Amino acid sequence: MRRFLLGEKDIPKKWYNLVADLPPLEPPITPDGKPITPQMLASIFPMNLIEQEISRQRWIDIPEEILEILYRWRPTPLCRAKYLEEFLKTPARIYYKDESFSPPGSHKPNTAVAQAWYNRQFGIRKLTTETGAGQWGSALAFACNLLGLECKVYMVRISYEQKPLRKIMMQIWNADCVASPSNETNVGRDILKRMPDTPGSLGIAISEAVEEAISDKTAKTRYSLGSVLNHVLLHQTIIGLEAKAQLRIAKEKIPDIIIGCAGGGSNFAGLSFPFIYDKINGAKIEIIPTEPTACPTMTRGIFAYDFGDAACKTPLLAMYTLGHAFIPPPIHAGGLRYHGMAPLVCQAINEGIISARSYNQLQCYESALLWAKTEGAICAPETSHAIACVIEEAQKAKEEGKEKVILFNYSGHGLMDLAGYKKYLSGELTDYPLPEDELQKSLRLIKGLPGTKRMR
Amino acid sequence: MRRFLLGEKDIPKKWYNLVADLPPLEPPITPDGKPITPQMLASIFPMNLIEQEISRQRWIDIPEEILEILYRWRPTPLCRAKYLEEFLKTPARIYYKDESFSPPGSHKPNTAVAQAWYNRQFGIRKLTTETGAGQWGSALAFACNLLGLECKVYMVRISYEQKPLRKIMMQIWNADCVASPSNETNVGRDILKRMPDTPGSLGIAISEAVEEAISDKTAKTRYSLGSVLNHVLLHQTIIGLEAKAQLRIAKEKIPDIIIGCAGGGSNFAGLSFPFIYDKINGAKIEIIPTEPTACPTMTRGIFAYDFGDAACKTPLLAMYTLGHAFIPPPIHAGGLRYHGMAPLVCQAINEGIISARSYNQLQCYESALLWAKTEGAICAPETSHAIACVIEEAQKAKEEGKEKVILFNYSGHGLMDLAGYKKYLSGELTDYPLPEDELQKSLRLIKGLPGTKRMR
Repeated sequence: MRRFLLGEKDIPKKWYNLVADLPPLEPPITPDGKPITPQMLASIFPMNLIEQEISRQRWIDIPEEILEILYRWRPTPLCRAKYLEEFLKTPARIYYKDESFSPPGSHKPNTAVAQAWYNRQFGIRKLTTETGAGQWGSALAFACNLLGLECKVYMVRISYEQKPLRKIMMQIWNADCVASPSNETNVGRDILKRMPDTPGSLGIAISEAVEEAISDKTAKTRYSLGSVLNHVLLHQTIIGLEAKAQLRIAKEKIPDIIIGCAGGGSNFAGLSFPFIYDKINGAKIEIIPTEPTACPTMTRGIFAYDFGDAACKTPLLAMYTLGHAFIPPPIHAGGLRYHGMAPLVCQAINEGIISARSYNQLQCYESALLWAKTEGAICAPETSHAIACVIEEAQKAKEEGKEKVILFNYSGHGLMDLAGYKKYLSGELTDYPLPEDELQKSLRLIKGLPGTKRMR
Repeated sequence: MRRFLLGEKDIPKKWYNLVADLPPLEPPITPDGKPITPQMLASIFPMNLIEQEISRQRWIDIPEEILEILYRWRPTPLCRAKYLEEFLKTPARIYYKDESFSPPGSHKPNTAVAQAWYNRQFGIRKLTTETGAGQWGSALAFACNLLGLECKVYMVRISYEQKPLRKIMMQIWNADCVASPSNETNVGRDILKRMPDTPGSLGIAISEAVEEAISDKTAKTRYSLGSVLNHVLLHQTIIGLEAKAQLRIAKEKIPDIIIGCAGGGSNFAGLSFPFIYDKINGAKIEIIPTEPTACPTMTRGIFAYDFGDAACKTPLLAMYTLGHAFIPPPIHAGGLRYHGMAPLVCQAINEGIISARSYNQLQCYESALLWAKTEGAICAPETSHAIACVIEEAQKAKEEGKEKVILFNYSGHGLMDLAGYKKYLSGELTDYPLPEDELQKSLRLIKGLPGTKRMR
């Protein structure tokens, strides 16, 4: 058997909240060191999602209406990568959860749909967000379109101009997608006045999206984030919960190794958190988030309080970070070019439950090509960072002569990212050494921020 | 329930050959009017596929090794378009077979895999083909890559230059993709000498691909075609056979209406032929192939012997045709811009079993947008020609107050075709009136060809 399928009735009915099974997280704080209260967030997020964000309840019901929408593409298949196994001549059995089946092509809609639904429940009419290459923006556009919400996406200007495909997707799904910085916010106008030719940045786009949300006089607009926060990771756990049921169908026990690429952490968390529950309860699993060597948040960053965005507009989060001023080299896996990491993923690192690895761009593309050659599909450049690790572990299993079970998250397809493949195939791609001086400078910048010294 | 799934063990084990249930087809003939013999085709196709091409056996076993490869994405889901139904307030129940799940994104790999496998069985090492926008070329590249065959794709020069995405897919799957006309064949060199700036055409690309196949001295190269021929349509019937089993799971009887878009006819045939078997045996089904008004082969063409290609290199086929010299207006549904139609589909028209309709480009894009708004996914421009008809029939069912069951083939996704959507959304797209003078001129050109007057 190659694919292990669940019917609609077998879809998980609850999300798993890892917060319940870890020591308390360091709380988000304000730039002057005070804890963030739910009320402080009320103009940015709806209160029902803020409640989820701070919930310590282990299992949280998935509303039936959200499941109804997820049925469009969920449960997603669990597949066995038999042909990759054969090519590698490994005794390992490699399984992957195929999240590329959603209409926007990745795991992102799992939380986009949930966030749009909770906002609508709360009476919100419009969501704003930022997007870089457009993966998250298109997922939120998709969700808002299905739920009848307006959607405004601030897309980093250089991507807006250079990567038109995702922008068209957003337009098909009725979103209003503008280049950031834009003339529609004070932040945007101010930056355009000072730097009319700026390519924009995620930090600026976040600032614009938040400004639009909080300045709506009717209070019917909120902001939506595609990763990092607890409630976002929560919504993704449906991936791992489905995978667990599917592994039972495949007559496998808990996997020996679980792998996911991690930019903000949501696809990795979605697959792995439900298995962390088992690990905490005694299962022996190696759980590996993977990241680019060019943006090595978990493997080279420090655990400290830092801003979530480059513009220093968000609360301070306790996380592994390269510093909010760190600008990663222009690798093609845009979704992994983030200076921080979800606090919940960081907590799992600190507890010794998971252990990160980093991979070079060229090795990742080489892995993606081997994947296309053996399994047939074209993966997202982000996903190739998981596949590189899978191949490494499968080869190790071969050397050790061990029948390991490896599970990874196939977080998205690469059909919107063919330009990177083209460069790789024509030999134009290079690896980027980590800019050490930049990193040290960026880390020094956050040393003065409050909170870090008081950490447990 | 929204999706109806089959497991691997439920995949059809035989293809259905409609030839067995229709009066004998008018045979392919040479330009001087003689019947084509299997031996005449032996340098173009392997003999095992030629045998399938002329077989009158109703059920043909699908080799286990082909099924093994199809398991990568098959069985595909049968889905109910509940949200479109709700939007239209129709009493009709609309089902679609989702062929967009294959790695190249359409139904094309169903035959690409089968053809590559039969060629390999016959000792062939390399396949050549032509491609326009690249849908078929990428499917054959995908199949050859999995089966370890070399693949050479002659891609129409203007598409090669203007539509780089599919070309990159082919390269990822190890195909050698060259712009046609190329310097690699006599036909190509000759045309380049006379017309160095030609944008190329499918006709030229076919001629180059065939030339390369037949001029391989080691006889290890053959040519592969993505539609039109009997064996190609045969391989696609797995779609309809799966759909039948899935409709039983959905507790539906035989559908009232079956719809598929038709360029060369393969996706339409794949879904509908297994149901034509039921219709011949008494079931009441309306079966509708849909085409563009800009290239109305079935609704405005004549039934006559004509060349399959613009360059007059292929055998003459008895089919509905606009004449091989007809150049359709540049609609975005490139896969439907073909002057002819599969002889087997044409025979079903002549027998009164199916009845074609044509749709304008703007109505099709409008339908595609409604599909994205309600069902969430972005369809191929070809597929939108089926959806336009589905909407029309669903509205008719509403007017009549009838609970009809409508089934259609969702032949592919539109993620590689976003440029057309962009033009539609910005108001740049227009409908094209059928160029009547061109059509009449083109039809006059084929009046002198042999065969037509001798038809039954």
